[in-house]
Amino acid sequence: MSTKKPQLRLGAFLPSTGHHVASWRHPEAQADGGLNFQHYKRLAQTAERGKFDMIFFADGVAVRDRNQGADVLSRNGKLVHFEPLTLLSALSVVTENIGLTATVSTTYNEPYHLARKFASLDYLSGGRAGWNLVTSATEAEALNFNQEKHMEHTLRYERAKEFVDVVTKLWDSWEDDAFLHDKESGIYFDPNKLHVPNHKGEHFSVRGPLNVARPIQGYPVIIQAGSSEDGKDLAAQTAEVIFTAQQTLAEAQAFYTDVKGRLVQYGRSPDHLKIMPGVFPVIGKTEQEAKDKFDQIQELIDPVVGLNLLGSMIGGFDLSGYPLDGPLPDLPETNGGKSRQQLLTDLARRENLTIRQLYLWIAGARGHRQILGTPEQIADQLEDWFVNGGADGFNIMPPWLPGGLDEFVDLVIPELQRRGLFRTEYEARTLRENLGLPRPVNQFSKVATREAAIA
Amino acid sequence: MSTKKPQLRLGAFLPSTGHHVASWRHPEAQADGGLNFQHYKRLAQTAERGKFDMIFFADGVAVRDRNQGADVLSRNGKLVHFEPLTLLSALSVVTENIGLTATVSTTYNEPYHLARKFASLDYLSGGRAGWNLVTSATEAEALNFNQEKHMEHTLRYERAKEFVDVVTKLWDSWEDDAFLHDKESGIYFDPNKLHVPNHKGEHFSVRGPLNVARPIQGYPVIIQAGSSEDGKDLAAQTAEVIFTAQQTLAEAQAFYTDVKGRLVQYGRSPDHLKIMPGVFPVIGKTEQEAKDKFDQIQELIDPVVGLNLLGSMIGGFDLSGYPLDGPLPDLPETNGGKSRQQLLTDLARRENLTIRQLYLWIAGARGHRQILGTPEQIADQLEDWFVNGGADGFNIMPPWLPGGLDEFVDLVIPELQRRGLFRTEYEARTLRENLGLPRPVNQFSKVATREAAIA
Ligand SMILES: Cc1cc2nc3c(=O)[nH]c(=O)nc-3n(C[C@H](O)[C@H](O)[C@H](O)COP(=O)(O)O)c2cc1C
Ligand SMILES: Cc1cc2nc3c(=O)[nH]c(=O)nc-3n(C[C@H](O)[C@H](O)[C@H](O)COP(=O)(O)O)c2cc1C
Repeated sequence: MSTKKPQLRLGAFLPSTGHHVASWRHPEAQADGGLNFQHYKRLAQTAERGKFDMIFFADGVAVRDRNQGADVLSRNGKLVHFEPLTLLSALSVVTENIGLTATVSTTYNEPYHLARKFASLDYLSGGRAGWNLVTSATEAEALNFNQEKHMEHTLRYERAKEFVDVVTKLWDSWEDDAFLHDKESGIYFDPNKLHVPNHKGEHFSVRGPLNVARPIQGYPVIIQAGSSEDGKDLAAQTAEVIFTAQQTLAEAQAFYTDVKGRLVQYGRSPDHLKIMPGVFPVIGKTEQEAKDKFDQIQELIDPVVGLNLLGSMIGGFDLSGYPLDGPLPDLPETNGGKSRQQLLTDLARRENLTIRQLYLWIAGARGHRQILGTPEQIADQLEDWFVNGGADGFNIMPPWLPGGLDEFVDLVIPELQRRGLFRTEYEARTLRENLGLPRPVNQFSKVATREAAIA
Repeated sequence: MSTKKPQLRLGAFLPSTGHHVASWRHPEAQADGGLNFQHYKRLAQTAERGKFDMIFFADGVAVRDRNQGADVLSRNGKLVHFEPLTLLSALSVVTENIGLTATVSTTYNEPYHLARKFASLDYLSGGRAGWNLVTSATEAEALNFNQEKHMEHTLRYERAKEFVDVVTKLWDSWEDDAFLHDKESGIYFDPNKLHVPNHKGEHFSVRGPLNVARPIQGYPVIIQAGSSEDGKDLAAQTAEVIFTAQQTLAEAQAFYTDVKGRLVQYGRSPDHLKIMPGVFPVIGKTEQEAKDKFDQIQELIDPVVGLNLLGSMIGGFDLSGYPLDGPLPDLPETNGGKSRQQLLTDLARRENLTIRQLYLWIAGARGHRQILGTPEQIADQLEDWFVNGGADGFNIMPPWLPGGLDEFVDLVIPELQRRGLFRTEYEARTLRENLGLPRPVNQFSKVATREAAIA
């Protein structure tokens, strides 16, 4: 297989009813999908049938859009859903090879809990866990955790950096071969292979060790999704996968080159970070059919919902006072998601979009790339970015679920496979191996720590 | 079925390799059970075959016994294991009727996370989740969460009380029938049925609402396991099941009467709290066989391990300086588990036990009741406490796993069923219904909150 083409990576990003803001109203959508395990079981098994590298669940620790009136809120079909780590744990039992990844915020969690839960998921799944590190972007989350304001952007990323440091130390508490289980001698583990992290830093003081053995993957795969300068820097230091939203090949190439270029200063190989922009595919037998399908779902958007989505995407501002068919007003800088606010204001100015046009533009993919077309056209677009240095793979965002995923698996995946761009069988059982990522060396095992191990 | 006898409740308390301190060394034990999903799957399915009300996992957020030397620590087979909520989520998929319960500490967690994860588990399992509320007993846990000392006992329970309050408010964020999923009108939920908790208290400020719908059971079943005055009071106010350790029928009756008596002041019926003392059964075809089995496992205890267990059970004191065959020294009061320290010192004084005798005494059941005998003898003992006001049921603690659970299910359960004391089929799909507990009314639904709902 030495002549095998480079392989692209695929994630299936699976919010309850789909990505489109009106997805739950689509005739083929599972409207109660957020809390329906059979729905998620079917999705995970479909993605595995399609040989996706991983499924991915976004997350936030609050009901978002809380600052809207009852009328807007009651039209939102995405407010309630499973907590991702409990859901992934359940899905680990009904899948075999696919990676199981989800967001957990570093701003509203403690490293010990996080390290432990992902290590536990890694054991449940035989090495298929992945963590999308985010620093959270909404004020609503702060209010659920004894705080009045969302932590300031720079501080959030400082905390995140130390958080990863603590988490990886905890994962390294035990060497891979620490456990002997020797019934005869009564020795359960080799004490030289236990390392107490004893972390004391700016934000965290965590003694350890972790009460889970070293994860099967060494570390679960670390993903990052912030595109600000702070976000990209953190990713260059710590992440193995980046989720990002890019609109044009030129932008994608610039982002790709920028982030990969940052790895060298941290002694990392560019190959060890996979960049996966989001793609929202609308698939038709003909291009026209794809466009009609898109129009059909766009028509299901209630204007108040569209406006509310736009408001929350630009940093939580209330746009209801502005005319729908007028321009986007100037906005104060947000403490939330900086990169998205920038993307949208740039777009509105560049393309001279009204508020309505802007919300229609984001209603599907929320700033990610939309591709409408036949399976061949979609494969062409993915191949174009992949071979031209814009992406290592893609995070696929079905417009509605389960139908949008079914179509991708049945129509687009076979086309990618025919072109030799995507696997027809999993290479391995672990997510890390399937992604072609190296297994991290235990940071403590190089040092002789016979005495230091047990304080 | 109106002549049916009162039914006893059974929990299966399932630590990785079993309850005995040397369980992992037992020839029939699964030595790597703590991180072996197939092992737990088999245990959960065996317990379900036995029609147990629930399985239960204890928990702590630290490697316990950290203050021991490497030699002691390396003989401990219980340091690493799955995180319970991820494990229960996975087990929800391979079971149908059995309750899925675990400990989560109120001292080292945030109510929003806890309410959310248990609500999520309740949906995954179709209404089978239960939460054992503890306030944590070890200093080691504090050190993993930015603290230098374990929070003081009274303060822990004050925090716990407010914690439950916040959690139940979050579970009540949505009324049971809030979600309409009406694709036609575009209305996803009835805004009058959303209640924002907006909790502001001494320890917590949590706005809510929860991003999970009201749990299938209303609330997951709330369990409590602290036996101090503070613990019993909290249980009387909030718990629906109590786990406890009692040695004699007289003690069990006193505890039972005491706790049930406390319910009236909170307007609760004594029937709505099930008291379940722990029982460590060693089962033989003859009484002698049971005794021999017990001796066999007792012989597997390394003295350093026994001493260490005793030290940790009496509040984390180092006993290694004291002669093994001398008396227990006087101990300073602990800030950890008060009720257990008391139980052990009383026992040592009363029975004039040496340190070695005391550790042998606790090596199996850690202060819970041990019953050695034939299936009939064990059933006699359980029946005795059950019909004489000492217990509503029992938390069964197999000495080693999986064997100890297999034997209980194959030998003791049929005997209890023959006596008409225990179900032969599950009555219902939810844990709450199987336990005969009422479904809690939503605390917000009585009030007209049309305007107040959305602030
Ligand atoms: C594919 C993708 C998924 C994301 N998932 C989450 C998520 O689950 N939770 C979240 O709070 N933010 C999520 N984000 C947002 C970012 O991670 C980040 O929090 C936000 O953009 C602010 O960071 P920044 O200022 O560095 O861009 C996601 C972004 C992308 C591109
Ligand atoms: C059956 C049973 C299970 C328990 N499980 C846990 C546990 O998982 N984690 C924990 O920290 N304490 C556990 N405990 C201990 C108590 O819940 C409590 O934390 C301790 O006894 C201190 O509280 P107290 O001073 O009120 O007794 C358990 C106790 C019993 C009887």
